[in-house]
Amino acid sequence: MTKRYPRVEVDLGKITHNTKKMVDICKSIGVEIVGVNKVTCGSVEVANALIEGGIKIIGESRIEALKGLKDIKAEKMLLRLPMISNAADVVKFSDISLNSEIKTITKLSEESLKIGKKHKIILMIDVGDLREGVFDEEDALKTVEKIIELKGVEFEGLGTNLSCFGGIMPTEENLEKLNRLKTKIEEKFDIKVNTISGGNSSSTHLIQKGKLPNFVNQLRFGTILMLGTVEVNDTRIDDTFIDAYKLKTEIIELKKKPSKPIGTASVDAFGSVPVFEDKGDMIRAICAIGRQDIDLDWMKPIDENIEILGGSSDHIILDLTHTNNNYDIGDVLEFELNYVAILRSMTSQFIYKDYLK
Amino acid sequence: MTKRYPRVEVDLGKITHNTKKMVDICKSIGVEIVGVNKVTCGSVEVANALIEGGIKIIGESRIEALKGLKDIKAEKMLLRLPMISNAADVVKFSDISLNSEIKTITKLSEESLKIGKKHKIILMIDVGDLREGVFDEEDALKTVEKIIELKGVEFEGLGTNLSCFGGIMPTEENLEKLNRLKTKIEEKFDIKVNTISGGNSSSTHLIQKGKLPNFVNQLRFGTILMLGTVEVNDTRIDDTFIDAYKLKTEIIELKKKPSKPIGTASVDAFGSVPVFEDKGDMIRAICAIGRQDIDLDWMKPIDENIEILGGSSDHIILDLTHTNNNYDIGDVLEFELNYVAILRSMTSQFIYKDYLK
Repeated sequence: MTKRYPRVEVDLGKITHNTKKMVDICKSIGVEIVGVNKVTCGSVEVANALIEGGIKIIGESRIEALKGLKDIKAEKMLLRLPMISNAADVVKFSDISLNSEIKTITKLSEESLKIGKKHKIILMIDVGDLREGVFDEEDALKTVEKIIELKGVEFEGLGTNLSCFGGIMPTEENLEKLNRLKTKIEEKFDIKVNTISGGNSSSTHLIQKGKLPNFVNQLRFGTILMLGTVEVNDTRIDDTFIDAYKLKTEIIELKKKPSKPIGTASVDAFGSVPVFEDKGDMIRAICAIGRQDIDLDWMKPIDENIEILGGSSDHIILDLTHTNNNYDIGDVLEFELNYVAILRSMTSQFIYKDYLK
Repeated sequence: MTKRYPRVEVDLGKITHNTKKMVDICKSIGVEIVGVNKVTCGSVEVANALIEGGIKIIGESRIEALKGLKDIKAEKMLLRLPMISNAADVVKFSDISLNSEIKTITKLSEESLKIGKKHKIILMIDVGDLREGVFDEEDALKTVEKIIELKGVEFEGLGTNLSCFGGIMPTEENLEKLNRLKTKIEEKFDIKVNTISGGNSSSTHLIQKGKLPNFVNQLRFGTILMLGTVEVNDTRIDDTFIDAYKLKTEIIELKKKPSKPIGTASVDAFGSVPVFEDKGDMIRAICAIGRQDIDLDWMKPIDENIEILGGSSDHIILDLTHTNNNYDIGDVLEFELNYVAILRSMTSQFIYKDYLK
């Protein structure tokens, strides 16, 4: 059968390899990894590759993605705070969720009781990034007290998220807020706090330095399993693959044209006024993919002599002047994808997905 | 039944109204409108709203979207240059396509002959924006000569695109290149050039000034039908609706917190180092939607006293300090969407679509 384009090839073996690597590292320091699959929009294939790598809990940010994963052999965690309007689905399709509002948790408890389940609650604590989580310690204690009273939910532990909205790095200092609260909860309510879910891939930099506090026993990893890269300090984990996701797309136009647009400039299709340098004539190619499906800043051509010039919703425009390969209309160009480009391409229904074992 | 969130409400009556308005304006100057539906990813409902407004040709940039529109009562135009690998689908699901490469057109002709159809070709001419199109006049004439020889395709006319990649405005001067070529083609090959497809919504600014050249008899309109706005000069067409697309999403967290993140800043989830002003404590809300589904720069809260502070892939964070409304967890906030946010939200499978008659 003819291959269809544009297409993302996902190398499942590479994802399993990366996962095994991180599971081993984390096991040695007493940390369990939640395998965050959200960048794939709920791909069953990738979730299974994570499970094969040793993951026991799969995390997704959208309950619709977890619906599609109902038959995989892992516990399921909803990473984004649940919507009240969606509480019935949350308890049906996930086992654990991250929460910060007692009103929502109360509704989850009601819906759990209806179906005879007990839903696990991780209470999110905001340690400074100012996305989700209870900020005030007294509020946190009051919320835990109420959670314990509810019959349909179980208090599983505390969690936090960093390096997202506010760009705040996880450190021994800000994570200490979780430890303080853990101790207070255990003393005040005479219960054991099972889980301290200390962050996402950005916490890997603490592991690298041997500075992840030992009370943290869970991390929610996506990027690091998919790409082997630690974004906050731009390092890589040894012996991991960065190219598990590859985009292939077809050349639909190839012509020698000027390098600088001719006429009166206004805004482009995305509202910016573009600026161009005059480099004389160049060999320009257009590929059948655009900003609807990918993000130009988060991808690069595998042929290093090709440069991305720009794009619109449906097109990317490339400079092929300096490549040694003799491309023609209908030929396929390949790109390595980074996080945001993976997210966009997995979201777009106009990109074929091909899973390599 | 409970409404599901997040949800985009599309007011089809408003789109039909905007379309009628533009069809009337264009009819009076001898211009036919292609109704560009691509921002909706092939919505049958919106395509029919455009048809009800007087549109006879529906345009999409992806052939997969046209597949889903096979039963609508209009001619179908593929706006993006076809992929050779996809030529069979192109002639099967579209009647007209925009082209610039004879190799692709030859393949379209072959595939057309196989199914006994005649596919119409509009030859794209690059008048300066440097996206798709033949740049050189001699090349254009040679390409037309070859198109005429092919049995499976029909030369329908010339087209151009502006205000996309290079941000070049359509003007009487740059459009004149099409007219010159039209005259040459008609003289040299003794044929009539039926269609001069002179651009997209950005050409509306020429209509406003009464300066659209009279040889232009087709325009491909999307934005102006959906939003009634002329982006290049930031004006609006009288008596049109800008709010045909409305986003509704639920509050999943609502708390008083500081305004400035606390700790050592690095990059956020999208690779930027965010900067924040300290405004003291504020009432912050998180809504269940993020940059996977929308674009923060292309939307605004309908409650004007709410400010968007930022977001990550799955969250938007809002300042509710100054609103007079008494919002709670589970309440629904409304946003007006502009072009890129409409595109993202229609692309996301995690947003419910609700069509209002």
